[in-house]
Amino acid sequence: MSRQKRVIMAVIIFGSFIYIVLTQAVHILGGAPGEPVHPEIRKFCSSASRKNVNIEYEDTNLPVIYVVTPTYRRPEMVAELTRLGQTLTMVKRIHWIVAEDSHTCSPPITSLLDRLGLSYTHLASPMPEVYRREKYVPRGVSNRRAALQWVQENGEDTGVLYFLDDDNAIDIRLFNEMRSTQTVSMWPVGLIGEYTVSSPVVKGNQVVGFYDGWPAGRKFQVDMAGFAVNIGYLKKQKKVTMPYIAGHEEDGFLKSLNLNLKDIEVKADGCTDILVWHTRTAKNPSRTLRLAHHQATNIKPLTDNMRKMGMIK
Amino acid sequence: MSRQKRVIMAVIIFGSFIYIVLTQAVHILGGAPGEPVHPEIRKFCSSASRKNVNIEYEDTNLPVIYVVTPTYRRPEMVAELTRLGQTLTMVKRIHWIVAEDSHTCSPPITSLLDRLGLSYTHLASPMPEVYRREKYVPRGVSNRRAALQWVQENGEDTGVLYFLDDDNAIDIRLFNEMRSTQTVSMWPVGLIGEYTVSSPVVKGNQVVGFYDGWPAGRKFQVDMAGFAVNIGYLKKQKKVTMPYIAGHEEDGFLKSLNLNLKDIEVKADGCTDILVWHTRTAKNPSRTLRLAHHQATNIKPLTDNMRKMGMIK
Repeated sequence: MSRQKRVIMAVIIFGSFIYIVLTQAVHILGGAPGEPVHPEIRKFCSSASRKNVNIEYEDTNLPVIYVVTPTYRRPEMVAELTRLGQTLTMVKRIHWIVAEDSHTCSPPITSLLDRLGLSYTHLASPMPEVYRREKYVPRGVSNRRAALQWVQENGEDTGVLYFLDDDNAIDIRLFNEMRSTQTVSMWPVGLIGEYTVSSPVVKGNQVVGFYDGWPAGRKFQVDMAGFAVNIGYLKKQKKVTMPYIAGHEEDGFLKSLNLNLKDIEVKADGCTDILVWHTRTAKNPSRTLRLAHHQATNIKPLTDNMRKMGMIK
Repeated sequence: MSRQKRVIMAVIIFGSFIYIVLTQAVHILGGAPGEPVHPEIRKFCSSASRKNVNIEYEDTNLPVIYVVTPTYRRPEMVAELTRLGQTLTMVKRIHWIVAEDSHTCSPPITSLLDRLGLSYTHLASPMPEVYRREKYVPRGVSNRRAALQWVQENGEDTGVLYFLDDDNAIDIRLFNEMRSTQTVSMWPVGLIGEYTVSSPVVKGNQVVGFYDGWPAGRKFQVDMAGFAVNIGYLKKQKKVTMPYIAGHEEDGFLKSLNLNLKDIEVKADGCTDILVWHTRTAKNPSRTLRLAHHQATNIKPLTDNMRKMGMIK
């Protein structure tokens, strides 16, 4: 081996060693796997409280349900949030936290939130760029983490936290089921994976395991829409987190709550009813439209509105 | 040519002639293209009237909106109809016609309709088998035709007819827009085809054409969710129909109403707002589950419920 080759070899070996030492140091300093190394960017946009549509819904003895909905700009966004938001106005004592994966809040969502008359919080928290390059992107983590922080700082101790995606379908009777949650409550979610359902396995009103087509070494094999958490219980935990690991967001979050199977409260008639479905809305391409021939008709302002809604580029 | 060959040739030519004469006769007797030759099977299952959730919604001076939703048994059916039905309970003076593409009405849909407290009609009308074999199947025609017949026989003349699919998303302000319809009213529908929208082109509050990515020789280039029809106007037309021709259902129906562009009422702020979206829900496979190990837990009754809902086989 020539002297030159030996020098190159030495540089490669030494470089690899330094890389390993540095990444380990970052892990030790940065915390557990899935924790962000750099600070996350969070933007609080607006909120309203006790502004419900219907005065009869203001029974202040009822615990508030904090519904967290992560979302992102795409052609279906306004449609989805309109549909879900309207549903939430039918439920008593809801506080809706809409958390966008974005640097700024989208104006049509602000308008929607104001119009619906719900109690709400509007946040923006973009996914750190490093995760967008991963093979399995952990979507909706940064914005859910921002919502979690808001709930820990502002939520009423008697209240309940619930994650509900913008394209899911929910039977509003589920909110009555979850409102009394003292630690963590669970129920089946329909239209999930290989079994068309994800559900706790219940024996004698105790959760003894999970019926889920994708175990993946998870302690809690559940979907994000399959559980609710009491806010007082949440606040008592030392290090509540949600990891940036695709497919392990729920498991990582529930593990950080120091939860045991025996503490889980069983809902939805002993986990035999389906009251929420993981429906998914088909995606549409984000288009640029050419409108040279339509400057003098309604089509110009119509497409301008669509652009504001994020439906076209 | 041998005598035998000549006989075969003569039989083929004569047979073709007879076939042409017979099919022409069927067309003349059976009506226009797309009209069914054999009678359609219709089953009226149940109905309820003036049974609204909220008494303030019973302003009997308001025209009734007859919302027609065609549906069929699949894993997402109960989820979709729960989501849409809940939305409809927020609207005054709605009569929901749920028309299944089936020989019988599905019991979980009957339960849903009873629980929601809406005024409703529940029908079943299966697609004739002959159309299931076509390359482009005209889905949802048989059941929409059954609903049309019901509306013609039972609808109030001041009322309005609106077709709304079970997976579409609607801003409930659109119902206020359509309620005053005197002939046929129209507005844009989002998330459609090549332009991400289908809309009338409006000049000086008059419809002068259509902005739609799929002209297909249609006079009325609109989506099913893009128009409403006054019931009195509908009843005055001689032969109201909807053809069994995929992609031409709306056009055929509107043509049968003897409608002219100049008669169309423009809604949604001069057709510049999007208040309804042709969202589509991703399909799930219809599975058979093996449950040998789950006879003693909640999973048995849970999957029994899912089977009743049509979520699994």
